[in-house]
Amino acid sequence: MKRPFVFINVASSVDGKISNEKRVQVKISSPEDFKRVDELRAKSDAIMVGIGTVLSDDPRLTVKSEELRFERVKRGLPPNPLRVVVDSKCRIPLNAKVLDGSAKTLIAVSERADFEKVETLRRMGVDVLVCGEEKVDLRGLMKNLYDFGVRILMVEGGATLNWALLKERLVDEICVYYGNVIIGGSKSPTIVDGRSFDPPINLELVEVKRLGSGVLTRWILK
Amino acid sequence: MKRPFVFINVASSVDGKISNEKRVQVKISSPEDFKRVDELRAKSDAIMVGIGTVLSDDPRLTVKSEELRFERVKRGLPPNPLRVVVDSKCRIPLNAKVLDGSAKTLIAVSERADFEKVETLRRMGVDVLVCGEEKVDLRGLMKNLYDFGVRILMVEGGATLNWALLKERLVDEICVYYGNVIIGGSKSPTIVDGRSFDPPINLELVEVKRLGSGVLTRWILK
Repeated sequence: MKRPFVFINVASSVDGKISNEKRVQVKISSPEDFKRVDELRAKSDAIMVGIGTVLSDDPRLTVKSEELRFERVKRGLPPNPLRVVVDSKCRIPLNAKVLDGSAKTLIAVSERADFEKVETLRRMGVDVLVCGEEKVDLRGLMKNLYDFGVRILMVEGGATLNWALLKERLVDEICVYYGNVIIGGSKSPTIVDGRSFDPPINLELVEVKRLGSGVLTRWILK
Repeated sequence: MKRPFVFINVASSVDGKISNEKRVQVKISSPEDFKRVDELRAKSDAIMVGIGTVLSDDPRLTVKSEELRFERVKRGLPPNPLRVVVDSKCRIPLNAKVLDGSAKTLIAVSERADFEKVETLRRMGVDVLVCGEEKVDLRGLMKNLYDFGVRILMVEGGATLNWALLKERLVDEICVYYGNVIIGGSKSPTIVDGRSFDPPINLELVEVKRLGSGVLTRWILK
């Protein structure tokens, strides 16, 4: 199956948490890492998140640097990559920042999604793809994204989407930035939640360096 | 309060897990890291684990290298450091490897521990320290260890003991070796479980390097 190159990018505490047990956003990243993430976004054709991340963090998922947006335009691209939300039951709030019109947005839903809500989104100019019965069929979504020209897909979490993509072996690379904090908590969301993999998924380390006050690591899936 | 220098050493998956959801030991470390851990043990006066780690992994906690044991003896030390188990209710199995007599062992229990079991252990030649009412009083234990000459204490987990020590601000340093695997699982034990810290605990990165197929990081608590 043809699909985009898929990489996960995540900022985590030293102990692997992406938030605390209240799911309140915690400052993990450093200015140096924000810059790196912005550059990764600018190089990507699309940025994907799960609905959980939209509901808890309400990210905008746009390129922050005007210069990087301008460079994209010079290359014949829209200023921002496509935003993709995996949202099986179409729970996305109509005032979510990813629906602010500042970039194209695709909501991938399953057949369980409310038809009225889907129609409302479509009238707002948002693309909605129905793909999968109970849950979004991630393989089908990847094929669709590829067919629409997406070659590089950046995944920005959260814990459940990361897990689902890894489970389906749809990930080529994972970048983890370990910020200089310990969050703790057996119920705090981690880099990869869901069920554990048995045997574990093997990786190959391709990069490690100090970045700001933390550590950047990059691994490829074998 | 005078206490030993306390450092946590842990091998984790890239996503911060120290085991899978069945709490079955997973190969995370590399030969290079085993060697490093053995050297850390040899340099320590005592090695501490929680009872959960004894029950799930049954570690021996001795120095594996004959050469390193010999060097300790040359320095006027016993071949192996003291083994310390934090075991509030004295649940340790009498056939646990830490009770094999190959090194001195101290079991720290609370007043909730069964008196008969404590007596049995003492008759086996195991030191048992009753310290704390419901749970082991970690500060009291640290003071006691210091008074008995322990200056460097290595903590080898698990997730709950790491959390309890961090909560009591009894940790000076944490070394995390990220092995080249993803384990996943919202119920898998992580480097630091318990309840999340709000605000998070701040660290300062003092070392980062590739080691074998993984990444070694060392952080000090600010």
